[in-house]
Amino acid sequence: MADTTYDVVGIGNAIVDIIGRCTDAFLAEHGASKGHMRLVDADTVVKLYQAMGPGIEISGGSGANTMVGVASFGGKSAFIGKVADDELGRIFAHDIRAAGVTYQTSPSTGGQPTARSLILVTPDGERTMNTFLGVSPELNHGEVDAALVAAAQVVYLEGYLFDRPEAKAAFRQAARIAKSAGRKVSLTLSDAFCVERHRAEFLELIRADVDILFANESEILSLYRVATFDEAARLARADCELAVLTRSAKGSVIFSGETAVTITPEPVARVIDTTGAGDLYAAGFLYGYTAGKPLEQCGRLGSIAAAEIISHVGARPETPLAKLAAQKGL
Amino acid sequence: MADTTYDVVGIGNAIVDIIGRCTDAFLAEHGASKGHMRLVDADTVVKLYQAMGPGIEISGGSGANTMVGVASFGGKSAFIGKVADDELGRIFAHDIRAAGVTYQTSPSTGGQPTARSLILVTPDGERTMNTFLGVSPELNHGEVDAALVAAAQVVYLEGYLFDRPEAKAAFRQAARIAKSAGRKVSLTLSDAFCVERHRAEFLELIRADVDILFANESEILSLYRVATFDEAARLARADCELAVLTRSAKGSVIFSGETAVTITPEPVARVIDTTGAGDLYAAGFLYGYTAGKPLEQCGRLGSIAAAEIISHVGARPETPLAKLAAQKGL
Repeated sequence: MADTTYDVVGIGNAIVDIIGRCTDAFLAEHGASKGHMRLVDADTVVKLYQAMGPGIEISGGSGANTMVGVASFGGKSAFIGKVADDELGRIFAHDIRAAGVTYQTSPSTGGQPTARSLILVTPDGERTMNTFLGVSPELNHGEVDAALVAAAQVVYLEGYLFDRPEAKAAFRQAARIAKSAGRKVSLTLSDAFCVERHRAEFLELIRADVDILFANESEILSLYRVATFDEAARLARADCELAVLTRSAKGSVIFSGETAVTITPEPVARVIDTTGAGDLYAAGFLYGYTAGKPLEQCGRLGSIAAAEIISHVGARPETPLAKLAAQKGL
Repeated sequence: MADTTYDVVGIGNAIVDIIGRCTDAFLAEHGASKGHMRLVDADTVVKLYQAMGPGIEISGGSGANTMVGVASFGGKSAFIGKVADDELGRIFAHDIRAAGVTYQTSPSTGGQPTARSLILVTPDGERTMNTFLGVSPELNHGEVDAALVAAAQVVYLEGYLFDRPEAKAAFRQAARIAKSAGRKVSLTLSDAFCVERHRAEFLELIRADVDILFANESEILSLYRVATFDEAARLARADCELAVLTRSAKGSVIFSGETAVTITPEPVARVIDTTGAGDLYAAGFLYGYTAGKPLEQCGRLGSIAAAEIISHVGARPETPLAKLAAQKGL
């Protein structure tokens, strides 16, 4: 795959996170399901923001976080996602470019504002997300740069984009471009509720085009409507070349045909904020995969990145991941 | 002073901090004096932002940070400062209110945007600030709510406001209102370069109206153009009822007439970001002072708050300061 300019190109929502702390009671009072992402409208995001405590703004977006992670390991990544020409949009564009990711999607003018996610972190470090998508789903066919997608070894698709029909079309287009160029298509299921909303279409896309599937335990159980991890894993390995399944504190398992590689998680002194754990695991895995490393090393790189991200607030690495990988001899 | 609604009302710049890490070489390349605040224009802030790494946005502003600190200890505080009706302005207003501070200054519409400070933190934890004031100095006479100032035991004035003539007038007005209502006037010198720019006017204000002066070592040396801390302290104690002088790792000294109370600093495991150390020291001191505590306890409360703030990124407390004070038996 020496004819590629990029290791990975990601397509996803372009979001700025507004992160604050709250109690479990606050989540219940505001009807937010702990640990999940829910979409909220413009009025709700304003009301919830008024009710929540002081925040910290950090660029986010699941696929964008993953591309930043790949760059932090030293990989070459690009991102496609839509912001508006407003302050949060400028913050998003600045941060992802400053992290070394190629980002060329032009901002929209007028209309909807840049997406934001109110991320409420409970004392146990678990994050619950309330996302107002704003302009983000207005990523239309024309904005998926075919040359860019074809120039990357792997295209990485964020499941959250399925929540809007316009974005879904862009999503499918990207998968087709990658396939015709002989590239790999990877998908993250993003959230169990998101899978619940789009199960049939996810399965269709996975069976038709997806080579590398990322999911956590609750997402993969929801996708196949089964009760056990082993059963879900059996179905996933039949549907994709690689099924990369994360299990929080239990680590992760990578399924490739008849092979299953189990990865123990990196130890973490104290979990501060789980936002971005899955995104950064995918970053480490994809960096290793596109560098031609064995699956066990890809998984370890994922675990290292996930451990870094849950040790602080926000879903963008604070320590260069290349340095952490080198310390572990990877 | 039982007829006051507030313990402290602060007047200062309403700023959102954009905090990123950089090397000493980056500061030199961009002409920024390490450890200081410089004002930059609209073009420079854009250029510097483009050049710097990824950022985290956290509400800031020296006086605003102090009022948040007072509220975090359980004191009643209010803030007067100007934002625009834009995204950063909404973030600033949300965060200060969510922290429990009364904030009623109306945002301006059209014209200049909300102030922002690009804060560059070097590997040693020292912060260097590049502030674009935007709409912040457009705090005119009419915006200093006389009833609010008169309703607080202490008015707290941020020296940085002296950098704009319009704001200076509001500043002097607030001091006069407080004096006529029989309240105390406190001032922080903010920055040695700021003192250098406005020495004569600072001295005039201090000698006429200031009861409680906050300064760090370099600021007080600059104010009196003397070479030693002892000499500066001798002059300061003659000019104000209370001179509260901080000396970084050497702790702080509170001068009241012939009395000098020396406070040892709270131990800090690792200095992450010194932004807000002086602001939060003032918060602890003023909380203790308005609660009628002895000077030694006021100083210890200041040290506790400063230690909390330099242990993480940003100048707003992450841990309730009332809890930390209680742990120390204060």
